[in-house]
Amino acid sequence: MSQHELIHFEDMNPETVYPLGPKHVVADEVIAFASEYDPQPMHLDEEAGKASILGGLAASGWHSCAMLMRMMCDSYMLRAAAEGAPGLDYVKWIRPVLADDVLSGETRVVDRRVSKSRPGIGIVHLRHELRNQRGETVLVSENPVMLRLRMPQEG
Amino acid sequence: MSQHELIHFEDMNPETVYPLGPKHVVADEVIAFASEYDPQPMHLDEEAGKASILGGLAASGWHSCAMLMRMMCDSYMLRAAAEGAPGLDYVKWIRPVLADDVLSGETRVVDRRVSKSRPGIGIVHLRHELRNQRGETVLVSENPVMLRLRMPQEG
Repeated sequence: MSQHELIHFEDMNPETVYPLGPKHVVADEVIAFASEYDPQPMHLDEEAGKASILGGLAASGWHSCAMLMRMMCDSYMLRAAAEGAPGLDYVKWIRPVLADDVLSGETRVVDRRVSKSRPGIGIVHLRHELRNQRGETVLVSENPVMLRLRMPQEG
Repeated sequence: MSQHELIHFEDMNPETVYPLGPKHVVADEVIAFASEYDPQPMHLDEEAGKASILGGLAASGWHSCAMLMRMMCDSYMLRAAAEGAPGLDYVKWIRPVLADDVLSGETRVVDRRVSKSRPGIGIVHLRHELRNQRGETVLVSENPVMLRLRMPQEG
């Protein structure tokens, strides 16, 4: 991919929407993630999940975040002139993500500004939303991402 | 573990501190996580990481979050009467987490209240901080967690 084809700061404006997913939530992946990073019973075992308020084998909220990131990568991040992110403004785990759910959604650009401290860098504020196969919102998050400017402004 | 031994809402008060880690950040784990969830070059390859502003093979920020959750589980969450979390107030990725770093830190209780809408449930507000082997803060996050009350209050 040439530098020219990369998504730069100027390409992301408040009208920009990137689709996310679909991603099939595979039971084995739910269990594998939880075994490594969040070994609470409702993330490891179908029966324990059914007995919990989550109602079934449920992905760790952190696993939902990780799946979101992979969907972001596949949609736009891997072809963006990205310079990382300083963090997350918030994450809302609105509904359980259960094994065999299919997640999809979108990233919207909500705001952007040129960095005052870092020449050639812009900060794009993104809002991510994921829904399940019934159209119910399961996760919402916002975070700032740093992107290089295609045309660095003169100082 | 008996119900009596579980950490309940009443056990978490603003003086409570739980240690996190130490956790050795293994290069293979950095690459394995990134391959699955965040396949950006600086998380997959030593040379690409050195060429980036991160300065080395760097864990995905989402991987740092996942490692935090595992440290929380090992420290207190797996022995808590926990009922899940509605989300994260924020996450700050303050410094890069590089392969061979050793992370440690603590969770502090910053606030708590009994739920008005859910009988027998309290909401504990936690602040998590992780530092590397040089004592530099790499990640800070806060989130609310729901815990059962040991002694449910009369309505």
